[in-house]
This record gives sequence, structure tokens and C-alpha cells, in this order.
Amino acid sequence: MKLSDAGERALIEITRRVCRRGPNVRIGIGDDAAAIDIDGMCLVATTDMLVARTHFPPSTTPRQIGRRAVVVNLSDLAAMGAEPLGLIFSVALPRKLDVEFVKQLVKGMDEAAREYGTYVVGGDLDESGEITIVGAAFGLARRQELLKRSGAKDGDIVAVTGKLGAASAGLKLLLEKLPLKGYRALVKAQLEPIALVREGRKLARSGAVTAAIDVTDGLAANLWQLARESRIKIIIDRAKIPAHPLVRKFAIQHGFNLDDFVLFGGEDFELLFTVKPMRWEKVQLMLKRIGTMATQIGRVAKGRGVFVQKDGKTQKLPDRGYEHFTG
Amino acid sequence: MKLSDAGERALIEITRRVCRRGPNVRIGIGDDAAAIDIDGMCLVATTDMLVARTHFPPSTTPRQIGRRAVVVNLSDLAAMGAEPLGLIFSVALPRKLDVEFVKQLVKGMDEAAREYGTYVVGGDLDESGEITIVGAAFGLARRQELLKRSGAKDGDIVAVTGKLGAASAGLKLLLEKLPLKGYRALVKAQLEPIALVREGRKLARSGAVTAAIDVTDGLAANLWQLARESRIKIIIDRAKIPAHPLVRKFAIQHGFNLDDFVLFGGEDFELLFTVKPMRWEKVQLMLKRIGTMATQIGRVAKGRGVFVQKDGKTQKLPDRGYEHFTG
Repeated sequence: MKLSDAGERALIEITRRVCRRGPNVRIGIGDDAAAIDIDGMCLVATTDMLVARTHFPPSTTPRQIGRRAVVVNLSDLAAMGAEPLGLIFSVALPRKLDVEFVKQLVKGMDEAAREYGTYVVGGDLDESGEITIVGAAFGLARRQELLKRSGAKDGDIVAVTGKLGAASAGLKLLLEKLPLKGYRALVKAQLEPIALVREGRKLARSGAVTAAIDVTDGLAANLWQLARESRIKIIIDRAKIPAHPLVRKFAIQHGFNLDDFVLFGGEDFELLFTVKPMRWEKVQLMLKRIGTMATQIGRVAKGRGVFVQKDGKTQKLPDRGYEHFTG
Repeated sequence: MKLSDAGERALIEITRRVCRRGPNVRIGIGDDAAAIDIDGMCLVATTDMLVARTHFPPSTTPRQIGRRAVVVNLSDLAAMGAEPLGLIFSVALPRKLDVEFVKQLVKGMDEAAREYGTYVVGGDLDESGEITIVGAAFGLARRQELLKRSGAKDGDIVAVTGKLGAASAGLKLLLEKLPLKGYRALVKAQLEPIALVREGRKLARSGAVTAAIDVTDGLAANLWQLARESRIKIIIDRAKIPAHPLVRKFAIQHGFNLDDFVLFGGEDFELLFTVKPMRWEKVQLMLKRIGTMATQIGRVAKGRGVFVQKDGKTQKLPDRGYEHFTG
């Protein structure tokens, strides 16, 4: 069977079955990041690969590529509630590339890392036909505070930070070469994403958050991942999902389906999480104090799967989003 | 200026200049691995990229690719004297590849990691035209024990573990399709390298080792790196460099220059290190007890550069070895 027939999820499952789990491994393959026990703390580690052909829309500058490579990795730490310690990069580049490209790329990495209070500490440089950038980020979290995908409980509130759909709408604008006027904020959301590291730390410290994941594959796909890993059912209210106002306008203007951005478009890097109901208002207030809005979009229930309520009807939410190999 | 004009070393220098160094970063860009202070210990982290086209000779099995991806990363930890905590991988594969390839690849990773007492704890799976495997390994070392490239002092003994040249001779055999009979051990050295993790830990704990590096680019290139980072001079005795006996035979049989394997051939993953002279015998004995031979090949002196004594004459050793982009 070819990889294109199996798909990314099946391959991750194979990997999870093959790899034995070490005694000090608190979280292994399958979460946003791995966590290993060291002296009452957890070392949290993650890696993300960016390949030019699939990950960078036209017009991305080397500086933006560098920034993005930092942000995608820090977002995984954010989803675990970890404090970043450092980043390392393996970078493969074509030999005909200009040295200035490397300077700008590394500048982007360095400035982004420092914005999040961390540093690029090492790496490896290689030659390849295609620009390939692999980052690894590591951080620390207290063992009890670690945010996993698997902790959601019946009755919990399902919430998401920010507004959704901007990054994928920005990608659409760039790929289909649509007029950018009035939509620059969407393009910026695509090319210069932000990792919610502070928000992740706050959620972790609150002790009220039972599960978390960053919205990278699309809200629907990430809801399904939460539901599967937590072995629960999630019911969301379509009317409550916070769409980015410009995305709404953009979809109407061009006749696109809003759901394709808000539910099935990825790379918003917002945090999707579940909270004990008694603590929800406090969590909301705590995020508001650092300038971040969070919206309740649904509830956790007994059972399996993800369902959406719309106009009084409840339907299964398609488990659709970006998947490698079959995508 | 193109990358091919600048060369790998100049690019690393650019990166080192651009990236600011954090206050808790003990070792940043330019050593085998990075080290970050956490509570009296150091978190040691490294990353290495393997690209099919440049890193895997024909006939490499997916299992061997998986093993190699583990070993190259653990060897960097070994050179720092760190105890491995875990490994994460970003793997990019062409979609037409068979699922069995992935199974074997991951099996190779898992079994190699466990042989060194550690685990594969996470990763990222992507699509790419070319098989690309990026590992990141992290480990712990006591702050005072950390083996750097920069600690060699005037008067120290320069030593290397094992016998050199086998891996590059094995590569020659495979690339030039020479008869393998009698030389299987060389091919094995190329396809199934070993990381000297236990040896690195012993050297670190001894308190007698002043600098260390793993022999990946070739003895000559790695000696130059040690000399540059430690700002000292190294004088080696050509007659003392331990060549693998099969490599000697192989070079004679085919009329190859032995130095091309022993001095300028890479990927032996032996440890090259400097020791306080008073402690040399003890260090040698300590390694012998775990079955590893170490040979004194030279001395550290005041000054700069690497020199080789041969037949009573002293010459500058060419700073030549594998370098990306210009190589």
C-alpha cells in the first residue's frame, strides 16, 4: 500500500504502535509535543517541518519563513502550556541560493524567538534541492500543569481563543491572486502567524483547563483530535464559532463558503481547549487581562465523535482538514 | 554571493553572528550540540538532517536509515558527554512510497534508540519529493561535566577512540561498486554506525577531558574545529593515527591513498578529545574497561592551526573534509 492510500493519520498510528514508550515518557507520539519527566518537571519537546513547495505561499519573504519556522514550533509548546527554553533548526537549502536569503531567514528566526523570550541555540545546515526547514523547540512545564489532548471530561466547556479563518482566507487570496485591498490583515495572518505562548502558560497554570490543542489543521480536524484522544463526545454550536469579521466579508464578496475557512481552514494557531464549567468565567477573565478573547463554542458530553448544532438540527461534523499524502 | 561560493562554514559564522545568545545558554551555535542551564544541570540538544540524495548510499535499507538517523544525533550528545533523554523526528516522504518503508524506518529508529537506553517520543510527518529525515536529540549533563570543543589547553594530550577510516572506505566500496568480499565490515561501518554514548559519559565524568568532538567530517576537519574553537595549536604524529586494518588493506589493493579515508574521510563517529597529561593513563584504562581503545595521536601546544609530523618533518595539515554547498 502506498502512503497516498494510507494517509497521514494511519501512518502516525503505525509509528505509535512500533515505538515503545519509555518509563519516564509522560506524553509520547500523538500529542502536540512530547513530555519527559525530569525531577518533578517535564521537558516538553516538539518538531515541525516546513517544505517550501507545500508550506510557503508565493510572496513569502525569507524573514517570514524564519519567523514561521519559530512560531509553528512554539505554538506546539503553547498547546502544552510549556515555557520555551530554546529552539534548534536543521535547514536544507539549494546551493544556487543567495547568501542574503540565509541572513534574512536567520534574522527572522532570531527576532521571532526573542519576541517569545527564547533563543535559537543551534542547528545543522545541509544541501537540498528544496528549501526545507525543520525546527525543534523544547520547554519546561510543571508535571501537574501539562495540557494534554486527552483530558477533556463530560460536562466541560469547549472554548477557543481569538477569531478563526483569517490564515486560510489569506492563503486563498495569495494562491488565487485575488485583489488584496482591504484584506491585508488576512494575508498577514497567513504569512506572520502568532503563537499563543503566554496564553498557553496562563491556561496551564489555571488548573482549570482539562485539555488543549492548537488550531493548525482546522477547527473541525482539531476538535476531532481532542474528542478521539479524550474518548469523549463534543457538541458545538455553529452560531457561536467566532469567525474573523474580514473572513465573513471576504467569503460573501467572492461567494466562498465561510465554513471552508472557519471550520476547515488551518493555521490560525489559536488555542482550542476544554474547561471545568465552574471555572470558565475565571479563565475567560484571566485571558482577557492579557488581551485575549476566548469564546465558548460547545460542550463535552459522554460518547464519541464531534457534532454541530445549527438551526435547531444536530449533525456530525465532517472530520476534514489538511492531511498529508492524501491531501 | 551564492551559497556554493560561501560554503557551509561561512554560513554557520553568519548564523552565529545574527543570533543573539540568551542568558541561560551555556553553549550556543557552533558546537556539537547546544546546552541550556536548568537548575544546576544542562539540557543538551542537537539536530541533524539526513537527505536521501546526499546521505544514503545505494543499498541502504529503510531500517538502516532509521538507525542512522538515531545514531548521528546521539553521537552529538556523546561528544558533549550528555545522557540521552529522548529523540523526536520530522520525516518527509514521497507519497508514492510504500507503507512498509515507513514501518521499517520507524522500527530502525525505535530499536536503535532503545539500544542506547532512550526512546523516540514524538515527531512530525510531511510530504516531500525527497526522503528527508531530521532528528533532534536531547539529553542532560552536569554543568561542570559538559564536554565542549573549546576547552583544550597547551600541553594536553590529543586522543581518539577506535580505528579510523572504515566508514568512508565502506562508502567508496558502495559508490564505486567494488567487490565486497572480505570488506563487509567496512560496509557495515558505513551503513550501521555506532554512537559512543557510554564513552562520552565516561569521559565527561572523568573530569580529565578538556575538549571533545565526534569524528563526522573527517579527523583533519574535526581537529581543525577543535583547534579553532579552543584557540590553540594541535600537533599530531601521523604514525600514531590508528587506521582500521581492513582500510589499510583495501587502500593498498586498489591503489587508494590511505589518508583519504583515515584523515579526510568522515562518519566514523569516534570521539576525538583532549586530556590533561597527568590523567591520560587513567582515562585510557577507564575506556578499556568498557571495551574501547583510545590512542594518543598528538599534543596541544601554544599557537594556532593543526600540524602533522611525518618522517621527521612537520607540515600544516590541510583543513579538508566534507563541507556542504562547496563539497
